[in-house]
Amino acid sequence: MKEKINVGIIGATGMVGQYFITLLENHPWFTVSFVAASGRSAGKMYKEAVAGRWHMNQDIPADTGNLIVADAMDVCKTKGKCSLVFSAIKLDQQATMELENRYAAEDFIVVSNNSAHRGTSDVPVLIPEVNFHHLDIIPAQRKHYGFQKGLIVVKPNCSIQSYMTPVYALIKAGYTIDRLLVTTLQAISGAGHPGVSSLDIIDNTLPLPGEEIKSETEPMKIFGSVMGDHIEPDTSIKISAHCNRVPVIHGHIACVNIGFQGEKPTVQEIIHIWNSFSSLPQELGLPSAPVKPVIYRGEDDRPQPRIDRDTENGMTVTTGRLRDCPVFDYKFLGLHHNIIRGAAGGAVLIAELLKAKGFM
Amino acid sequence: MKEKINVGIIGATGMVGQYFITLLENHPWFTVSFVAASGRSAGKMYKEAVAGRWHMNQDIPADTGNLIVADAMDVCKTKGKCSLVFSAIKLDQQATMELENRYAAEDFIVVSNNSAHRGTSDVPVLIPEVNFHHLDIIPAQRKHYGFQKGLIVVKPNCSIQSYMTPVYALIKAGYTIDRLLVTTLQAISGAGHPGVSSLDIIDNTLPLPGEEIKSETEPMKIFGSVMGDHIEPDTSIKISAHCNRVPVIHGHIACVNIGFQGEKPTVQEIIHIWNSFSSLPQELGLPSAPVKPVIYRGEDDRPQPRIDRDTENGMTVTTGRLRDCPVFDYKFLGLHHNIIRGAAGGAVLIAELLKAKGFM
Amino acid sequence: MKEKINVGIIGATGMVGQYFITLLENHPWFTVSFVAASGRSAGKMYKEAVAGRWHMNQDIPADTGNLIVADAMDVCKTKGKCSLVFSAIKLDQQATMELENRYAAEDFIVVSNNSAHRGTSDVPVLIPEVNFHHLDIIPAQRKHYGFQKGLIVVKPNCSIQSYMTPVYALIKAGYTIDRLLVTTLQAISGAGHPGVSSLDIIDNTLPLPGEEIKSETEPMKIFGSVMGDHIEPDTSIKISAHCNRVPVIHGHIACVNIGFQGEKPTVQEIIHIWNSFSSLPQELGLPSAPVKPVIYRGEDDRPQPRIDRDTENGMTVTTGRLRDCPVFDYKFLGLHHNIIRGAAGGAVLIAELLKAKGFM
Amino acid sequence: MKEKINVGIIGATGMVGQYFITLLENHPWFTVSFVAASGRSAGKMYKEAVAGRWHMNQDIPADTGNLIVADAMDVCKTKGKCSLVFSAIKLDQQATMELENRYAAEDFIVVSNNSAHRGTSDVPVLIPEVNFHHLDIIPAQRKHYGFQKGLIVVKPNCSIQSYMTPVYALIKAGYTIDRLLVTTLQAISGAGHPGVSSLDIIDNTLPLPGEEIKSETEPMKIFGSVMGDHIEPDTSIKISAHCNRVPVIHGHIACVNIGFQGEKPTVQEIIHIWNSFSSLPQELGLPSAPVKPVIYRGEDDRPQPRIDRDTENGMTVTTGRLRDCPVFDYKFLGLHHNIIRGAAGGAVLIAELLKAKGFM
Repeated sequence: MKEKINVGIIGATGMVGQYFITLLENHPWFTVSFVAASGRSAGKMYKEAVAGRWHMNQDIPADTGNLIVADAMDVCKTKGKCSLVFSAIKLDQQATMELENRYAAEDFIVVSNNSAHRGTSDVPVLIPEVNFHHLDIIPAQRKHYGFQKGLIVVKPNCSIQSYMTPVYALIKAGYTIDRLLVTTLQAISGAGHPGVSSLDIIDNTLPLPGEEIKSETEPMKIFGSVMGDHIEPDTSIKISAHCNRVPVIHGHIACVNIGFQGEKPTVQEIIHIWNSFSSLPQELGLPSAPVKPVIYRGEDDRPQPRIDRDTENGMTVTTGRLRDCPVFDYKFLGLHHNIIRGAAGGAVLIAELLKAKGFM
Repeated sequence: MKEKINVGIIGATGMVGQYFITLLENHPWFTVSFVAASGRSAGKMYKEAVAGRWHMNQDIPADTGNLIVADAMDVCKTKGKCSLVFSAIKLDQQATMELENRYAAEDFIVVSNNSAHRGTSDVPVLIPEVNFHHLDIIPAQRKHYGFQKGLIVVKPNCSIQSYMTPVYALIKAGYTIDRLLVTTLQAISGAGHPGVSSLDIIDNTLPLPGEEIKSETEPMKIFGSVMGDHIEPDTSIKISAHCNRVPVIHGHIACVNIGFQGEKPTVQEIIHIWNSFSSLPQELGLPSAPVKPVIYRGEDDRPQPRIDRDTENGMTVTTGRLRDCPVFDYKFLGLHHNIIRGAAGGAVLIAELLKAKGFM
Repeated sequence: MKEKINVGIIGATGMVGQYFITLLENHPWFTVSFVAASGRSAGKMYKEAVAGRWHMNQDIPADTGNLIVADAMDVCKTKGKCSLVFSAIKLDQQATMELENRYAAEDFIVVSNNSAHRGTSDVPVLIPEVNFHHLDIIPAQRKHYGFQKGLIVVKPNCSIQSYMTPVYALIKAGYTIDRLLVTTLQAISGAGHPGVSSLDIIDNTLPLPGEEIKSETEPMKIFGSVMGDHIEPDTSIKISAHCNRVPVIHGHIACVNIGFQGEKPTVQEIIHIWNSFSSLPQELGLPSAPVKPVIYRGEDDRPQPRIDRDTENGMTVTTGRLRDCPVFDYKFLGLHHNIIRGAAGGAVLIAELLKAKGFM
Repeated sequence: MKEKINVGIIGATGMVGQYFITLLENHPWFTVSFVAASGRSAGKMYKEAVAGRWHMNQDIPADTGNLIVADAMDVCKTKGKCSLVFSAIKLDQQATMELENRYAAEDFIVVSNNSAHRGTSDVPVLIPEVNFHHLDIIPAQRKHYGFQKGLIVVKPNCSIQSYMTPVYALIKAGYTIDRLLVTTLQAISGAGHPGVSSLDIIDNTLPLPGEEIKSETEPMKIFGSVMGDHIEPDTSIKISAHCNRVPVIHGHIACVNIGFQGEKPTVQEIIHIWNSFSSLPQELGLPSAPVKPVIYRGEDDRPQPRIDRDTENGMTVTTGRLRDCPVFDYKFLGLHHNIIRGAAGGAVLIAELLKAKGFM
């Protein structure tokens, strides 16, 4: 791969945008050639646009810092500047959908961090290790919207990613799950910056009603099947979620109770399934794919957000404390880095998958 | 009530001991006349024994500060110094049981904050609003151990008190609950002082395996019945618990999923049941009894530990976010102040109940 | 005092506004009869205007909750609704000054929490225990602006109030201070709500350049003298400040190095001066005046924000760790509750002083 | 360098010991061949000895995990197992000195993280970039104690390392400093594990009297000169320190006021001196030496502990906010990672210096 592929970031000045820029520095396949944001930042050099609100420990990559920020709304001016855009812009749902559609209509591959298109029946909500086959919907999507080379793929909400891959690994191994009861302890970075006021969260926790709806509906679509022109959700798993914000910087914990229909695996089988789980991103050797998408830790005081969130550069889901449940079959804990695996890193992995599968 | 009753505190130098002293300052019925601790503190004035490790915002009450700390093991020397002792001493389970038995054998009413006796079949684990009738076991207990005037009552683990009273209120209203799935977010003060290392909990959460066992067994005893010489647990409710430590100073949150057998109340009925719940401590007008043992808050961002924990001096359980559950019947949140209602304040309320019921 | 005086709050929906409302509930002299805010809140009932952003532990006082929020800009419509307004509105400096002037021109007593007028030479920056005599400027102020019954008084920045009263107590006792070197550890509530992003401050501290300028200039005015038509700053004390934000909810710590000119008191004398300090608010028995404006704690691990901030309802400055300084004369720590003494509570005390001195 | 040098860690199970093990994994010169701790851990495999209290994000290096923990007191049994020991054991001062002496007497190079020997006049307190020439005392030290190949070097307290190198850079550039006024905001990891109770530090700060004495005396020794058989402290700089603990995990901030005698540099000169400062560790290319021992950040909201502590693997001191001081000449902020540069990393750098200078 001699020449790198130019990629752009829409909403480049926000926290997730900054993570994209940091993760893509020195990426073997992609190079950031384009940054766009709201009109307020447009026309400034990127490093000026984020002065005083750059939140990464690493400094701004020099090349990116010198890019001129485009107005995200000027889609037509973007033509030729990159092949793929990561969308992390903060607009209302309708405006986000329209903007992402416009980019796709202009032949851009759109990998979105936004929730707007998650409910669109022909837009895949992708966890590359879980439902890569949902890319089969792309021809129908293109036909529906009239996209030529463009397409739209979104990543799911971060609240569900601490357990979706572990649960999928069990399904892939042949078991049928029919009940999931989940309570999350979610990190503040999930709300972006400035996001959660320190006055609201120090020495406190907060209920997160809005996250619960996403947590109960998105898994059905991800576990669903491509049926002609749409993805048909799998409604055979009943899911109930409690979501909470806790004073943790990065790393969402999920406390999961799981029930099987029919035969159920033993504790040792589940641990083996998780530790040996591998999927298409691993087979394809995608640059951001973790060697182990799921690991199980045997210590009874793990996972912990601060200690485990950075495993395999924040791309691995860490599970632990698998044990019998007096009400369902089993209980366990899951953890993932909500900004890496759950947002920017997960989107980069999707882009890599799209590249490897020949979509650009 | 002209003359106050003398009470003592065993384990008076620890954090719960300090809460007892603070809560009992200016108590209308009780006066702290005796403090005991380990041999290291024995012989010192109380204010010297806690110098550099007094954790309360209020200063040490002057009278208590000047008491000479007794050696908790010298039970016989305690005779005549008080009628009731609050036990908050940190020993292993066997040693705690033996010591509490010795105090009861010397005619002391023992109200214990320790877990040691919670599994003893003729020792009530008391939430005064819920199972006050378990005091009926006392004659059998006295007979069994040969106590004359002495007796032992313990308070339950703090991890369960965010939902036990709300759940009991529904049972009392005639509904049958058969499933409870609980995930807790527990405050650091539940581990005492020094307790949780700051290096372990800032920007982090911790699993709490030990709390889960207590959470799944103690409710059965509390909902049980006095059957001759023992309290027979109610095993008709299946309970599963996930317990977590979070960086909150005081106030345990419980995320609860609840299932009914047979008829179930509506959301509005449950809210009405909770807001109008009252029990024996309220009828007796016990000094520490909250007017409302349970309140329901309608805001969708409540309860929150820092805002709600001090309701009615920390003695009220705050519920909120009652809603349908896709897997069980309902979901809700509960919160209580783990050191007031869940420890020292709950124990003082037990002592008041014992006084009002004529046990001293 | 049969009838209470009606007071209003301009900027009533913000965090300091909420503190005013909470502190004034059941105030013996004042009753909140008027609330105003920006146009967005105008016309709503107060309880609706703050729904989802009421940050106090106590619920909204019922009477205040039912007040209709006025538009703060409609000064003329406010006439007759109250005699005094507390100004806590967030506008830019120029707009704040103009608005406060308009209220004063309409005969309102204006007690401001804002910084806008702190540099105005005929507007007193008042700490009631320190420079109550600056009220002598009011006739000149009224003449200058053409106020009839109206007047404007402001409270100083919270960053300086952990040491201003202790330092003044030494000046009042006859000592001359010529150098002050101060480093503050300031709580997040000083920035209001939403204020400091949790992502910026958890596991972190932040420099506060803007607070340093205020810290080095406001003391000179407060220690200054009324000279005809203006307050002449006292420039004889050199002051240097480092200001830092720390992850503490309420309570600013100041680490102070102090140098005397001429005779200096002993450590014991200073402690005695502080513990016995009393001033006009104490003599007048103002309702919000603490019995002890300054206390000295002898423990070497005090003051601490969480333990000491609420002393005397948050109105007392707590000092500690007075010791020799190898470079200046002495070092000590000061602490005050930045939202009570340092903002809303300090402003209420000013209002009480104005009432007691016959200004309304 | 074909063959690596065997090194040991005394006090290997504590937090600093764990940092040594983590930092030395894959070290180009050293390999951990020996671990010792108190009698409680002796005889266990290292991974068992730290089970449940391993605090690093990285897992225990496999080779080290399988080492059998020796009893730190059995010095004679250590012979031949390594050439150098890092001492991080927690004993009282007298016992620490005796133990370190015994290791040196047995021909071990002892690099100590403990404070015990810091006051010993012929033991260098070393910051390799600052006072490497203090190694000239080693012959006298060996003679005094009768060490043959052994020797003892200690690293200074972490509280001073946020400004010692920046201050030294100015001295090296030819300027004379006569006054330093320092206030620190110190991270919790400085107290080790379990160290600071979470109940003491969440939503709080704590005075640190014990750190202040070290902060005012150690710099004099470090800036001192080898005079025959001892290091003569430089008492020409007056230093005064306030030390505070804040709820930050790693990274000590120092707020510094500095006064010069005679000519003083301009702000631009100081920034240039810092950014271009280099010393012996850089010239020798020591593996742990940062390229830039000091960097200056121009943003007015830096340094911040969480963002800047890991600069150059935690070995760089970050300065910022250099500005005029109304009382002294200048003010600035300094920051260093207290566990890397300030403890384990600094000690490893000392060991590298000793190796490069031919002491082993």
